[in-house]
Amino acid sequence: MNDIKDFLQKIERIFEEEQFVHQPEELYAPIDYTLRLGGKRIRPTLLMVANAMFGGDESQVRDAAIGIETFHNFTLLHDDLMDRSPLRRGQPTVYRKWNENTAILSGDTMFALAWRYFLRQPSPRLREVLDCFNETAIEVCEGQQYDMNFEKRNLVGIDEYMLMIRKKTAVLLAGALKIGALYAGAPAADIERLYQFGIHMGLLFQLQDDLLDAYGDVAVFGKQTGQDIRDNKKTFLPLRALELANEAQKAELLSLFGTAGVECGEDEKVRRVLAVYDQVDVRRDVEKIIAQEDSAAIGFLEEIALPAERKKPLYEMMEMLKGRKK
Amino acid sequence: MNDIKDFLQKIERIFEEEQFVHQPEELYAPIDYTLRLGGKRIRPTLLMVANAMFGGDESQVRDAAIGIETFHNFTLLHDDLMDRSPLRRGQPTVYRKWNENTAILSGDTMFALAWRYFLRQPSPRLREVLDCFNETAIEVCEGQQYDMNFEKRNLVGIDEYMLMIRKKTAVLLAGALKIGALYAGAPAADIERLYQFGIHMGLLFQLQDDLLDAYGDVAVFGKQTGQDIRDNKKTFLPLRALELANEAQKAELLSLFGTAGVECGEDEKVRRVLAVYDQVDVRRDVEKIIAQEDSAAIGFLEEIALPAERKKPLYEMMEMLKGRKK
Repeated sequence: MNDIKDFLQKIERIFEEEQFVHQPEELYAPIDYTLRLGGKRIRPTLLMVANAMFGGDESQVRDAAIGIETFHNFTLLHDDLMDRSPLRRGQPTVYRKWNENTAILSGDTMFALAWRYFLRQPSPRLREVLDCFNETAIEVCEGQQYDMNFEKRNLVGIDEYMLMIRKKTAVLLAGALKIGALYAGAPAADIERLYQFGIHMGLLFQLQDDLLDAYGDVAVFGKQTGQDIRDNKKTFLPLRALELANEAQKAELLSLFGTAGVECGEDEKVRRVLAVYDQVDVRRDVEKIIAQEDSAAIGFLEEIALPAERKKPLYEMMEMLKGRKK
Repeated sequence: MNDIKDFLQKIERIFEEEQFVHQPEELYAPIDYTLRLGGKRIRPTLLMVANAMFGGDESQVRDAAIGIETFHNFTLLHDDLMDRSPLRRGQPTVYRKWNENTAILSGDTMFALAWRYFLRQPSPRLREVLDCFNETAIEVCEGQQYDMNFEKRNLVGIDEYMLMIRKKTAVLLAGALKIGALYAGAPAADIERLYQFGIHMGLLFQLQDDLLDAYGDVAVFGKQTGQDIRDNKKTFLPLRALELANEAQKAELLSLFGTAGVECGEDEKVRRVLAVYDQVDVRRDVEKIIAQEDSAAIGFLEEIALPAERKKPLYEMMEMLKGRKK
């Protein structure tokens, strides 16, 4: 069995080889730009790893791997427009480099292209693959809507938040694993375990994203830190900080996420929010919850009836995600 | 065989019965609003008619019919945002009634929901159905991009224009017919004839749309006339008018689609462009080309090896489209 780095390299090669520019160029150039911006390629890697675990070979999932990454990049492209994010992976986002209409239409086209890649990849279980992809796509949209809703509310429950990140982030990692396993003809029970592994890995991944937004190193991170605070995003950090805070700290946080946060200016707002985070030590708290998600994920992975050697790349992936700095 | 009005009524009932609101409501309310705005329901009707022609029954294509209309309405929703159109079917467009982000995300979700409807509709030829739907969707996006490109150019060839409307409009009508016939298990040669019928019907439909924008009755039409002129849209009318015009008329048109059109104000621009259209009698010319598309479409319909009775609803549909005022 290859290790996780081999899979990541294979995915890089696949994206280097693939031709994304067609006519009209105004439509496809932003798609090519987006798909060549790089990124961690976690979803196609998970899809390929899951396939290989159950004895599938690379050619069986090449197009599906491109499809899942194309879908993921479509969601980023539209999210960046909706969130007005200027940068993605340290480069201008599509709506900034081109314009809003280009971001809308090239994004729509990427969603359609994702389907083309899946439809091109033959499998006796293609119907299950497509159902999984489609239900995942719908959940991702729902997750993004919850995320936008939360920006307008002052209080969001931790449960609501966990549902949101499950839909927005975790189901796509889980779906990538499930699709890879389906192409390999894996047994249903193992596919379910793999899916649950993916869900917990996804929750871990998002909680860590929340942490990095506040505590990442901007040079490594590739984008401004504190962006979630500026955007009034109710991530795990403020929600959990509110639970841990005393009355004075709670009042400070709520006012910063209200009019006081507008009045004092964005940089000052970030500074004061981070000060409360440090006082209640929310960082250690989130790290504890990340460790719990890690255990839950590994628990499901252990239950899968395959030799340890086969599961090695997924253990490595977990280690990689836990150690990531961006 | 039912007549076309029965099919249109069935489609209305299907949309009345279908539940489009789920959680989160902020995401699904605009989808429900869009799908209940009405409209001509031409695409699902074509899909059902094509199915019935070849002996299929209604239950075989109910969900697919909803799927094709959901896709069509998704494209309208995003097009209205990109074109900044305030009204659709006489009502506020989604980006106006809600906001831009809602239009983007609810649109994306509608695209995914369209897939769910197709995937729900079992068929031994589902794979062909999905391929047809997907390639059609990609072509529609390409058509929209050509359309946006043309707005920025002063001269567009008639051939380029015909390719654009083929992709933006005709392939979806043709695709709806093909999908309906696939669900009924129709022979490949007849499906191809039906597809070509749909292409020519679609071209006719779009050319008539171009005519209505300039010559429609605003009370019946449901939206402002002359919008294409305001938007500098290179529709068949200005492109053909340029071919028919003398040097003075040509200079007048080109200046109106350039800086002179901005300087004189929108209403004056519309008035002066329409004056040239009348001078070169572009209306009669477009009506002649519509008649040619009509003949081409009917030619393919006649070649389909079915009793005339079976083809009656499509003849009726052509009559309906030719007589439409909005």
